[in-house]
Amino acid sequence: METNMENIIETLNGLLSSRQYAKIRSLLEDSNPADTAALIDELFGDDYEQEKNFLILFRLLPKDDAAEVFTYMEPEMQEHLISAFSDNELREFLSQSFIDDTVDIIEEMPANVVSRILANSTTGARKAINEILNYPKDSAGSIMTIEYINLHKDMMVKEAFETIRKVGINKETIYTCYVTENRRLIGVVTVKQLFMADEEAKIGDIMESNVITVDTTDDREDVARMFSKYDYLAIPVVDSGHRLVGIVTFDDAMDVITEENTEDFARMAAVAPSDESYFKTGVFKHMLNRIGWLCVLMISATITGILTEKYNAVFTALPILVSFMPMIMDTGGNCGSQSSVLVIRGLALGEIEFVDFFKVVFKEFRIGILVSSVLALVNGIRIYIMNGHDIRLSITLCISIIFTVILSKLIGAALPMLAKKCRLDPALMATPLISTIVDCCSLLIYFNVAMKIFNIA
Amino acid sequence: METNMENIIETLNGLLSSRQYAKIRSLLEDSNPADTAALIDELFGDDYEQEKNFLILFRLLPKDDAAEVFTYMEPEMQEHLISAFSDNELREFLSQSFIDDTVDIIEEMPANVVSRILANSTTGARKAINEILNYPKDSAGSIMTIEYINLHKDMMVKEAFETIRKVGINKETIYTCYVTENRRLIGVVTVKQLFMADEEAKIGDIMESNVITVDTTDDREDVARMFSKYDYLAIPVVDSGHRLVGIVTFDDAMDVITEENTEDFARMAAVAPSDESYFKTGVFKHMLNRIGWLCVLMISATITGILTEKYNAVFTALPILVSFMPMIMDTGGNCGSQSSVLVIRGLALGEIEFVDFFKVVFKEFRIGILVSSVLALVNGIRIYIMNGHDIRLSITLCISIIFTVILSKLIGAALPMLAKKCRLDPALMATPLISTIVDCCSLLIYFNVAMKIFNIA
Repeated sequence: METNMENIIETLNGLLSSRQYAKIRSLLEDSNPADTAALIDELFGDDYEQEKNFLILFRLLPKDDAAEVFTYMEPEMQEHLISAFSDNELREFLSQSFIDDTVDIIEEMPANVVSRILANSTTGARKAINEILNYPKDSAGSIMTIEYINLHKDMMVKEAFETIRKVGINKETIYTCYVTENRRLIGVVTVKQLFMADEEAKIGDIMESNVITVDTTDDREDVARMFSKYDYLAIPVVDSGHRLVGIVTFDDAMDVITEENTEDFARMAAVAPSDESYFKTGVFKHMLNRIGWLCVLMISATITGILTEKYNAVFTALPILVSFMPMIMDTGGNCGSQSSVLVIRGLALGEIEFVDFFKVVFKEFRIGILVSSVLALVNGIRIYIMNGHDIRLSITLCISIIFTVILSKLIGAALPMLAKKCRLDPALMATPLISTIVDCCSLLIYFNVAMKIFNIA
Repeated sequence: METNMENIIETLNGLLSSRQYAKIRSLLEDSNPADTAALIDELFGDDYEQEKNFLILFRLLPKDDAAEVFTYMEPEMQEHLISAFSDNELREFLSQSFIDDTVDIIEEMPANVVSRILANSTTGARKAINEILNYPKDSAGSIMTIEYINLHKDMMVKEAFETIRKVGINKETIYTCYVTENRRLIGVVTVKQLFMADEEAKIGDIMESNVITVDTTDDREDVARMFSKYDYLAIPVVDSGHRLVGIVTFDDAMDVITEENTEDFARMAAVAPSDESYFKTGVFKHMLNRIGWLCVLMISATITGILTEKYNAVFTALPILVSFMPMIMDTGGNCGSQSSVLVIRGLALGEIEFVDFFKVVFKEFRIGILVSSVLALVNGIRIYIMNGHDIRLSITLCISIIFTVILSKLIGAALPMLAKKCRLDPALMATPLISTIVDCCSLLIYFNVAMKIFNIA
């Protein structure tokens, strides 16, 4: 793949400089739009000096591919192309692209480019674009498209085929058709069903009338998850009056799932999520994405530290205790993050709901007892053997571990669900935050147990 | 949704006990297969006493739905149904389900059930099932299906439509058709293209002849990611001789992406991944999934502790140092996990390759410098003010933080890539492992810096 890419780029550069445009055209004809876009991005990178060249390249693309290739390009490249387009070019280009793709592009563009795009869209398209742009960022409405096939229940199958032939070319998907009656959705029929039905059959008789729909305001992640549940190609989006306003297609759903997962991974690592890929994000931006949480966590860790100051007496009397601090803190942190991450994932996949709160907490409690007993046993024996058979020391550690583990499992399970309840992203309650909270508790447990057992005042 | 479910279940229970089967049938007719499956699972849970009842319920399902409903059920339920089926029932049932679904079921079943399934499959099906079962667990071959539409390049479009009408009903997707010449894949054509083409046109002339394919042995996650790149409905799977052996459909790709993400989340939290959902996994199994890594990490944390013992002198002379241990350790751990998780995600999405090793490490190095300077500054000032203007103490902390942060960023970035290079799952190198490694380094840095600055021998 990589090397292959390198070769093509070399060839292209050669052909460009020697102006062998026919060769370039035929070379691009065979390439898949997604690959072509990657190619152009790779070819010019951030070197917009070459603007002339990539305009030429873009104009050499097969007409029907151009719009699709464009949607796959990096925003910077898109912006440069649009500003290089003549209004005519832009108009023709927009007429060939799907509304939802245009919306995606608009969302990445600066105001002046946006207004130019809108100015050059048809009145209908402009209206649709604005509507979609007005839906909340993470709603079903914001990822839907309005280009679906609309049938009437009194049509015959063969008429439906005619309609599909006539209007299909500009529709994002033709494989699921929607049956409406004065704009209200009354059924769906798939092209497969049409094929299997009699040519004379009425759409109303073969359509599936109990349709699974989503509201324009539904969360886009929930909508995306419905695709993996029902294996649909598209899901219709309806407004409060059950009027069909658009459809969400499986490819958008896939992108949503990937984006949402990436966001969760970032949040779980105390990084502010960003849409940019790792390399596209500059060093300074990376710093900004990470510094916020680090400061918060550093301060909370400082509080932990200040609390431990009170126990100077304990570890000056018994310095050996200090050497177990890392083990206690890490074990607590790890147990907490195990529980929190599993619960966060369960919430994301809809396997766990807030109603399960006590079920989950009780389960983690029992798991905590099992886990902690094993860890305490292993550790207790090791310490007894390796630290001069000091039974009091190993008892101190065993008790501390048991309390720490159980507590951290409970905290790790509870916080994400409470976050969800408070409409926060549960992913925020993952490893880093949990471990700082747990650290504090575990050290307090540890030192107090030690004080009791070694009766240090 | 939830409450809605409760009501239906109540109604169903009522209807079952009062034997109103007609009512049940009509109730099930309107329900989507995925929902029906969830319903049956919910209705009987683990209560297999009710076997008679759920057999009745299953037999009341619309014939064409039954097979699909079955594929959505929990393995336990599937096993019980199969053993309750008569051979005739099983045969008819298998004839209605897709090969890849049957394979998924088989993978969950005990040997005796498997042999019964194979015994009751047609010779062709059995052959196909065995082939698919023989592909490595995470390969494209293991998730493909053999039920695709096969066209010939000399066919006319209208003949193609005829073929689709004839064989379409048993095909997993009819919307992408594959053109082969003595079993070698020479092109694809979508139903949309067929609709837009002239009825008399030859398939060979309208088909897309440069096809994107995957090998049977390709990694299923890479294949799944191709779907989000190309927005395909299906990707053809070819063998070493470029012969078409099957197709992977988008719905299987979606499942793969979700499974792989869930696995990564688990590994990142030092939990052994399991296919079972959170609640389906028993307390004891949960313990087993978590205890392994906890022990490993506990031991490495113990080593950290033992290393710190050498510095007794330092913190008995200067107990205040102990109170900064949590802050140093947590900050290091958090910085490390930020880098590791971003790199792990980048590797999973193919944004980062091993060839970028030095590019990434250098980037993290620069980020580390920025981040650490900010943290050191904030912290240094705070400590200077809050700890009696002890300049040596704040300098100690500043230096320790700078070294700790940069080091942990480098480790966090490097380990996942090295893991990938060694064919290990990069996700294993996430937060917990990183933080234990970083803890050790950071404490050594911290105490040595302190010894130098306070010149304690």
